[in-house]
Formats: sequence, C-alpha cells, structure tokens
Amino acid sequence: MGDLQLVKKFKVNDGFFGRYEKLVKDVVLPYQEKALNDQIEGADKSHCIENFRMAAEKLKTGKCDGEFYGMVFQDSDVAKWLEGVAYSLTQYPDAELERRCDEIIDLIGEAQQEDGYLNTYFTVKAPDQRWTNLQEAHELYCAGHMMEAAVAYAECTGKVKLLDIMCGMADHIYKRFIEDGAEGYPGHPEIELALLRMYRCTKKEKYKELALHFINVRGVDSDYFCKEKERRKWTVWGADPEDKECMQCNAPVREQKKATGHAVRAVYLYTGMADAAMETGDTTLTEACKTLWNNITQCRMYVTGGIGSAYEGEAFTEDYHLPNDTAYAETCAAIGLIFFANKMLYLERNRKYADIMERALYNGVLAGMQLDGTRFFYVNPLETLPGISGEAKTHKHALPVRPKWFACACCPPNVARMLSSVSEYAWHLTQDTLFSNLYIDGTLDLTENFGGKIILETAYPYNHVISYKFAPVKETMYVPLAIRIPAWSKNTKILLNGKPAEYEMKSGYAYIFGEYRAEDIITIELDMEVKRVYTSSRVAANTGKAALQRGPLVYCAEGVDNENDVLSLSLKKDGKITLSEYMPDKLCGIQELYAEGYREVVSDDLYSYDAPVTKECQITLVPYYSWGNRGLNQMRVWIPIS
Amino acid sequence: MGDLQLVKKFKVNDGFFGRYEKLVKDVVLPYQEKALNDQIEGADKSHCIENFRMAAEKLKTGKCDGEFYGMVFQDSDVAKWLEGVAYSLTQYPDAELERRCDEIIDLIGEAQQEDGYLNTYFTVKAPDQRWTNLQEAHELYCAGHMMEAAVAYAECTGKVKLLDIMCGMADHIYKRFIEDGAEGYPGHPEIELALLRMYRCTKKEKYKELALHFINVRGVDSDYFCKEKERRKWTVWGADPEDKECMQCNAPVREQKKATGHAVRAVYLYTGMADAAMETGDTTLTEACKTLWNNITQCRMYVTGGIGSAYEGEAFTEDYHLPNDTAYAETCAAIGLIFFANKMLYLERNRKYADIMERALYNGVLAGMQLDGTRFFYVNPLETLPGISGEAKTHKHALPVRPKWFACACCPPNVARMLSSVSEYAWHLTQDTLFSNLYIDGTLDLTENFGGKIILETAYPYNHVISYKFAPVKETMYVPLAIRIPAWSKNTKILLNGKPAEYEMKSGYAYIFGEYRAEDIITIELDMEVKRVYTSSRVAANTGKAALQRGPLVYCAEGVDNENDVLSLSLKKDGKITLSEYMPDKLCGIQELYAEGYREVVSDDLYSYDAPVTKECQITLVPYYSWGNRGLNQMRVWIPIS
Repeated sequence: MGDLQLVKKFKVNDGFFGRYEKLVKDVVLPYQEKALNDQIEGADKSHCIENFRMAAEKLKTGKCDGEFYGMVFQDSDVAKWLEGVAYSLTQYPDAELERRCDEIIDLIGEAQQEDGYLNTYFTVKAPDQRWTNLQEAHELYCAGHMMEAAVAYAECTGKVKLLDIMCGMADHIYKRFIEDGAEGYPGHPEIELALLRMYRCTKKEKYKELALHFINVRGVDSDYFCKEKERRKWTVWGADPEDKECMQCNAPVREQKKATGHAVRAVYLYTGMADAAMETGDTTLTEACKTLWNNITQCRMYVTGGIGSAYEGEAFTEDYHLPNDTAYAETCAAIGLIFFANKMLYLERNRKYADIMERALYNGVLAGMQLDGTRFFYVNPLETLPGISGEAKTHKHALPVRPKWFACACCPPNVARMLSSVSEYAWHLTQDTLFSNLYIDGTLDLTENFGGKIILETAYPYNHVISYKFAPVKETMYVPLAIRIPAWSKNTKILLNGKPAEYEMKSGYAYIFGEYRAEDIITIELDMEVKRVYTSSRVAANTGKAALQRGPLVYCAEGVDNENDVLSLSLKKDGKITLSEYMPDKLCGIQELYAEGYREVVSDDLYSYDAPVTKECQITLVPYYSWGNRGLNQMRVWIPIS
Repeated sequence: MGDLQLVKKFKVNDGFFGRYEKLVKDVVLPYQEKALNDQIEGADKSHCIENFRMAAEKLKTGKCDGEFYGMVFQDSDVAKWLEGVAYSLTQYPDAELERRCDEIIDLIGEAQQEDGYLNTYFTVKAPDQRWTNLQEAHELYCAGHMMEAAVAYAECTGKVKLLDIMCGMADHIYKRFIEDGAEGYPGHPEIELALLRMYRCTKKEKYKELALHFINVRGVDSDYFCKEKERRKWTVWGADPEDKECMQCNAPVREQKKATGHAVRAVYLYTGMADAAMETGDTTLTEACKTLWNNITQCRMYVTGGIGSAYEGEAFTEDYHLPNDTAYAETCAAIGLIFFANKMLYLERNRKYADIMERALYNGVLAGMQLDGTRFFYVNPLETLPGISGEAKTHKHALPVRPKWFACACCPPNVARMLSSVSEYAWHLTQDTLFSNLYIDGTLDLTENFGGKIILETAYPYNHVISYKFAPVKETMYVPLAIRIPAWSKNTKILLNGKPAEYEMKSGYAYIFGEYRAEDIITIELDMEVKRVYTSSRVAANTGKAALQRGPLVYCAEGVDNENDVLSLSLKKDGKITLSEYMPDKLCGIQELYAEGYREVVSDDLYSYDAPVTKECQITLVPYYSWGNRGLNQMRVWIPIS
C-alpha cells in the first residue's frame, strides 16, 4: 500500500503548500529543466541530457562525439526531475511539458543497452567497468532513481514507456545479482525502496525479491567493498571501503542498532527496510527499523528534523552530538527521514512517526529552499554566525546564505519531488481507514472509494483550525477517517458540526468513522499555544537553552529583526511570548513571535570578571523555514534562558 | 636583555613549581632520554640519536647502514631535550647526566658537515635536496631549536661546544641567505627567536641581522612557497603553499593584523618579532606585535590561555570562534603564547602581558601534562564528553584522557623546557629594575647585582600571601623591586614589615624600591576571592555561561566529582561559592570549589515541551590543570547560569 494512490486524487488549494507547489511548477522545475539542457547562462553545465544523447549515439553508431561530463551519478538528476514533473502534472496539467518529458524518455530508451543496462557514465565513458565499483559508482543508485521516476510517470500520466525501460534495467540487475549470483550490494542505498515501488506498480514478484536480496545481503559480508576495491583498478573519489559505517555495511541490517554513516544513505536504506517489512510482514526487519528509528529520533536528530551532525562524510556521528553551528543536516537527509517516517507509519499507526514527518517537512526541508524557489541550502545549521559560518575551516560547509543553484544536483530536485507529492504523506488510505497525517489545504477525490470528495480547509500551520468537509456524490458518504492529533497539541477540540464529536483515540489518531452529508463538517481545533522546547541535558550544545515552537513550526531569532545581534539575547524564564497577526507581506506570509528577554551590553573584553549588564528587551522570532531570506545576518534557534 | 640571565641564579624551593621541576628531572627528562635512544619497550622508536649516528657515520665513511627514520623535524626533539636538561641542571646538578649530554653534543658535532650544515634528515636521506623545501622540511626550524639548546647549554653549564657547532650552522645559513642572497623564509618560524638568543649569547651582530632578515622578508613575496613548490620535485606531506595564512606569509609581517594559521608557528614568529623590536627599537615592529597581541587576547584565546580553535591546520580560525569541545588549543601553542607575552613584557612593562603569561602557564600549559609526568595532551579542550570526544569524526583529536607518550615529539619536551626555565618568566632584571612577574617559591641570588639574595616564599597559587625576604651579604641591599599585581586581585595589600608599604603603581606593577635588611619582609596579600568569569557575548559557545577562577587558576567540573554528569549542572546566579581546605592528597594538592547550583533530572526525551525538573545541588570544581587525571569522565569549564 502507499505510493501514488492519492497523488492523482488530491488537488491542492491555495494554502501554505499550494504556494509551494506552484513555486515548484513555476520556478523550480523550469529552472532545473534548463539546467539539465545546459541552457543557463554563466552556470556550470549539467550535461545530463547531453550525456544521454551521447550514450544513444554511441549505441547506434558505435561512437560518439564529446565526453561524459558530470558526477558519476549525474543521470539521477534527470530522474528526480522527471519524478517531480510527474507529480506536478497531476496538479497542473501541461501538455507541452509532458511532450518534452516524453521526448526525454524516448532518449533514455535510446540510451539503454540491448541487455537492459542503462547508465550514461558507463555506456559513454567506461563500458568495461560496469558493475566493478558498487561502492562508489552509484549504478544501482541511479537505476533506483530512474525506477522511481518511471513509477511516478506511469501512475501520474498513464504512460508506461519509462516503466518498460526500467523493467528492462531491473530485469538486467535481477539476472546479474539473483540468477547469475553476483556478489555485492549498493554503496548508496536507494534501489531497495525503488524496487518495492516497481513491484507495487508492476506486480512483478521478482522486483520484491531483488529488493529483499539487497537488504538481506547488506553487511553480511561486511568486507565486500574492501575486496571489490582490491579487484578493481579504478576509483571515483578514493572512498575508504574500511569505513563500513559510512555505507551501513558494518553488520547485517537486522543487527544494526545505531544510525551511522552518510545520513542520506542511511535513511534511504531504512526506508527500503521498513517498506520491505510492510510487504513481507518480517518482524525481524520491523524490529530493526524501530531500533534505528528510536536511535535517530531519541539521540541523533535536530529539533528541525535535520539529521547528520558532521560535514565529514555528511554523516551521523555519535549519540547526543548535535552541534548547532557546524551541523550538516542536509536537506536531502531530512527528506529521507520523511520517507522513513512515512513507511514506519504504515508499519505502525502511531502519530509519533507523523509528528516527526511534519517536523522535518516544515522545518528541515522547507528551510532548504529560498522562499522564491531560486536558491537552496544543502546544509541547514541551527546557528549562523557571519564571519565564522562559511569562513572558518570548521564551517566552510555551513553557508550563511543560500548559494545560487547553478547546475542541477541532489537537494533542489529532491525538494521539488517532495513538495509536489506532499499529499502522499498527508493522506494514507489503507484497506479500512483513511488517515489524515498532515493538514494540507485541498480536495481529496475518493468517489471511487467512498462515493465522494473530502475537502480539507485550513490556514495551517498559522491557524489552528482544520476543517474536513464532505461532498458525497449521492446523499451521504461513509468515511472511515482517522485524524492525527499532534503530540504538541495538549488540549484539542474535535467537533462534528460544532459540537463535541464522538471518536476513539488510538496512538495519537482520532478515529471518527461516520456517514456524512454535504453539510457535515468535522473541525479540529489544535492547541497552538507557543511552546518552549528543551533538549535533554545529554546534548551539550543546548544546555541552559530553549527554542520556541508554535504548531509544527520551530522558530529562530535573526539578526535583521534583533539589532543585528542575537548572541547577546536571552529568554526570560517564564516570560511572556506573544504572537503577531498574520503578516501576509512578510517572508511570504508568517506570524512572528515576540518573547520577553534580555539583551547583554556587549563587552569588548573577551573575558570579564563583572557579570554582563543586561536590559530587558523583546526578542523577535520568525519561523526557521523562513530564515536566511534577508541577506547575511546572525541566526539562532537555541537561545539561553536567563 | 632577558634570556637565561636568571635561570642559574634562581633556586626553586618545594612549592608548587618545585614539584613540577622535580617531576621534569625525575620523570619527564629521563623518559625522553630513553625515548631518544629507542630504549622504551613496546614504543614506536624515536631514532633521534640513531639518526645523528648515521649522519656522523656517513660523513666519516661516505655511507651508513640503515635509513633515516622519523619526522622531517626529528632532530628538534634532541634539541628540546638538551635545552630542558640544561635548565634542569642548574637546579639539580648531575655530572653523569651532563656527561651523557656532552657525548650527544660530540655526536652532533660529528654529524655536522664541513660547511657547517647540520640536519640528519638531509645528510642521511636527501643530501641533494638541501634548502629546496623551506615550506615543509623544517631545516631552519630544527636549526633554531638546536641554537636554543646551544645557548641554554652554554649559559647553564659553561660549555660552548654546541654553541660553536651552531655558530657554524648559523654562519652557513647567513652565507646562504645574506651573502649569497638566496630567496625564502622558514615555513615554520622558530629560527628568528633562536638567532636573537644566539646574538645575545655570542654578541655576533650577524645573527641579529639574519633574524631581522627572515622577519623582514617574510610575506613580502607571499608567493615564495608557491614558486618553491613548482621548482622542487618532492614533498613531505603535500602541504598547500596557497594556504598562506597557515604560514603567516600572506602579507609582510608589519601588515598582518590578525593572528592566523598554525598557532605554534604564529606565536613563535611573533616572539621573534617582539624580540627583534626590543633589540632594534623598531616601532613599526612593536606596533605590529601589539596589533597581533590584541587580536589574540581579545578575540582568539581561550580562558585557559589556549590558542588555535581548530584541529584543521592546528590553527587560529576567525575572531570569537572558540568552541570548547573541538578546541585544538595545543599545549605547545600555549607555551608559545608565553614566549610572546614574555617578550612583549620587555617591550612594554604592563601587567596585561604577565597576566596572560600566568593564565597560559597555570592552565593551558600545565593541563598538557598528567600530574605524574607520564602522559601528555597535545590538545586541550574546555569540554570533554566521553562517547563523543575522541570518537566522533569531528572530535578525533580531542582525546578525553592523555595518551601514553610513546616516542618523543613536540609537546612533552616543550613542557619540560618551559617548566625547568620558569624563573626566566617569573623574574625580569632590567638595567634599573627587578621585576617579579610570577610568584615562584624560591631564592634568587643577586649578590653580583644587589649584594644579596631575595627569597620569595609563598604557597601560591593556593595561598594569597607572597613574601619577599632579603639576605644581604652586607648589612643592607638596595633592591629596585617591581611586583606585578594581577588584574584579578581587586583589593591587594602591599606591606612592608606588616605595615602598609609605600610604593608607586604603574601599569599594574607596584614599584617598591628600597634598601632592605635581613629582617625586612615585603608581603603581598592578593585578593583571591573566587571569581565568576564571563565571556563576551560575541563568543557563541559561552553565552549564558560562566567559568570559575580563583587566583590564576581556572576551574572545571569533572564527572568523577559530580555524579558522573556535569552537563545537567547549572550555576545558581549569585549563588555562594566556597573553598575547601588545601587537600594535599588530592590531585597532588589542590583546593576544591563548591558552588551552589542546580541539577536537572535528565530527560530520556531528546526534546521536551516541559521545562526540566531541577533540584538544588552543590557543584564540585577542581583546577583545570588537574583534570583528566582520574580516568574517563566528563569535564566542563563553562557552565550555564540558572
């Protein structure tokens, strides 16, 4: 279950995510299309489409002009773009855009070898080195992304050509690793989750078998990459095969207790594992997923849903090591955490997974993109210090403003595909229940299932009221609705037509099954009082500090709102926090917070024996996702309490 | 002025530093001697002496068995050891040890080439590459250290053989860089300060000229190392010549405004610059030194006197970037800061230099050595978190316990030579004044100068009373004494024979010139009330926190005294702090501090909306220099204030 059953049935309205989906359609995807085609002046070329052209030409004529250009995983940029476009077309049909996609898909087909193999790096540049460097060369990773694109394009447009192409590649891989018994597993997990999507889309059991194979053999021979390196005579970037935790092959997956290594790889793997557990009912895999989930969310996750504490290896480090200014917290890793959470939610219907999904989405992911969709952060620190961030040797990665997105690369297209498919995470339809996990303003057409539409109306995340209305085709429609009530909402009202509704709470979901008429309305009134958030004292970086959160939004103080100096601010213990009116013209529409606090008179002495002089002040805070949109300035999420 | 005029005249007593000087004699120097001779079982060999043997053999016979082993700067370990021994011999004469030193010096002489050149790496391993890699190969650095040893050995023992050898090498260098006009300057400064010592010891003007030359040409052609790299065909470790800040050659030294790059190199350079300014009266150099001094001490120094915020390059980073847990703060850099402070004090008689000298000595330097003298920290963090420190990719350098000192290397012998020559920093004798900068329990024999001895009696740094007694040869002695009163001592009593003395305060020194008899006693009663230290809010790592300091000692909380958890502790604002009695059996004799504070009940939730539950508690703190002597445990200097 899951995957794309609802993306076509949901029409987003003009609410908070409506703006984002339009931005993806109007700005992000068009920019990326130009980038893929090397049409952006002054930018590094992407060469993605050109790589496919060369591969096609070489297969046709035996040779090609020019050379492969780009990263070894350059193909995946086309894949992620196609996937994002597929989702976006369900909201905004565009025949001309679809035609251009079809052309690209034709080209991809021409770049496929007779035996089904598809990868422009190896076809153009290194045909003799196919499958010799699973650790670094990302063949299975690129295949996985193109499989996801194929499934998305088939489900969203009904066109199966790319799906057929990728069945050819999947069959090729099946033959190699299952029928011919080749050793190995992917250096960068991704194909596992993709094959399960292929399986659900095509119903071909062998794809499930292949996904399970890669999951089951991973780390069983934990020296595989070492042996591979000894055999091969080439390297992509000299990665160390002994760093087994980096690639999550330090132990068989069921024996891994801690989330380790490259954070994106980790959560892509865990997503595949959780999906496999769901498809097979394998409780050993479920338990492994829960252990890893708990380790991430209880020991290794930023309050923004960011994961990966270190630039070095873009990786998890150790429990409770969550530095704010040197955080890596890659946008793609937060997206991967949402993938993982989403699958866990299918495995165990508990709001805790949806709460984290929402936390990562509204904070760790959205912060990755400038509000106008033109610039992106890969790295999402929780504290930014101009003069140090992006400057000091230890902070080169932690840029204080989003860089221009010149060519296509990992995070921007990942944001695009996430935002254009957000309904897949917002709603889950199981055999007996419709789950509302996130509150996205829009209409869900379940005529085929329940004989009508469900209209969700809300100004969330700024307003606390979420309304579910009904549009039955006949007089009534039966809807087995289960609505997540976030853990942060202490006093929630659940109303049916204005009166307390009857419902059953189970694991954070309000089950409110019923037969509804057109006039009926279920209203959820969340408790959106501003909360102070405290970190366990095991996290050294945040001792004595608090963050502010309202609803799902983590807030931060930026210099531009606070006399260009947030470091000298402290929150008054138990001080009053007030909420601004909705400000439609500020940062694309936000509500600010104003917290009673203190400001130190900044001392020119580095060290002093005199307690700093402080004066009362009001601290202005804005949502974390909106930070860094007003030039170079300080930013801080965790603020000392006075 | 300066240099070794007093080391022979001062006899340390059994006070705080007396213990350290004995430890250096009994443990540190003997261990290192064994290491130099490869006599430590199970340890990596040093091969230092063996390298000299091979060089001597090769010069005698044209060939040698075996190969050079060790770092390119391996020779400097012998030099630093000899220098330390020289100082130590003034306190603890040892004819047998001196004989062994003489033998080593004979060997060094045999390893010197006919043209004066001395360096075993190049003589044994790479004779054709002499002087081709000033950036990395440390020829001038090794020469500098051996010159320092030569001066020390000559002054302390009266034996000039090593001095003659090093005059040969200095003449060789003079010929190359002055007479023959060779380009270049040292990649690792050190020879500048050493040549000035050679100049003062030998009175040869050419050594001063050579020192000034290296200072003056540095960074004038800031591309020198780039050009050198293009010319040479070899590398030691592939250092990047474009990283000019690393080697302080980004600009001519008089134009450098910020302390940059490798911290040890930086302060060795600035020491040479300050010394040159003193010798020449060059005010442009003095101003440059003051600018750099201010930048270090106002923007880039830990409260322990540690410098160098980043492991990457063992380097300074940016202003106000002072992370506690990932600090580098190399022991040698704190020592170098003392060298620099000491020279600044000759340039400008102001207690601020002596205050920093004392801060670095009692905290940043002493913490580098285990209390029993057998283990050493190179890296001195201000916060240690077992499970993260030494473990996380970002913290591999920040070991939570001192490692075993297997072979000889930079920090241990540097600590040895510093501690065994501490009187050189404690006392300054200028033409008209005897300055007492630090309070070291012992006797200074100034019979030649003032007709008697001065006996300093104190249990400092634990006791606040410092007594100066007099032992005139005749009835009285005239002593033009100036005593530093530290800035932290707000209410200081200065007594002569128990009554308020007459004195003049100038720039933090009490000038109390007088004619004294044997019964006379000047007593300084310092104000040693425990102080809270606050950092400028420009330093993100320390906002909302305080450290405790008493006298010169910075304190820290260790897990072993605090229920194995210091992260959950906070200091009560304006809470009482009490001082223990002197505990002779704890950590070689300390006084603990007990601060009123709070302890959070540790939450198992990583994040919580509920304010942490706290209970009042007493926080136990020990001097920072004594941390890490009781196994693996947490340590924290900066503690949140509640």
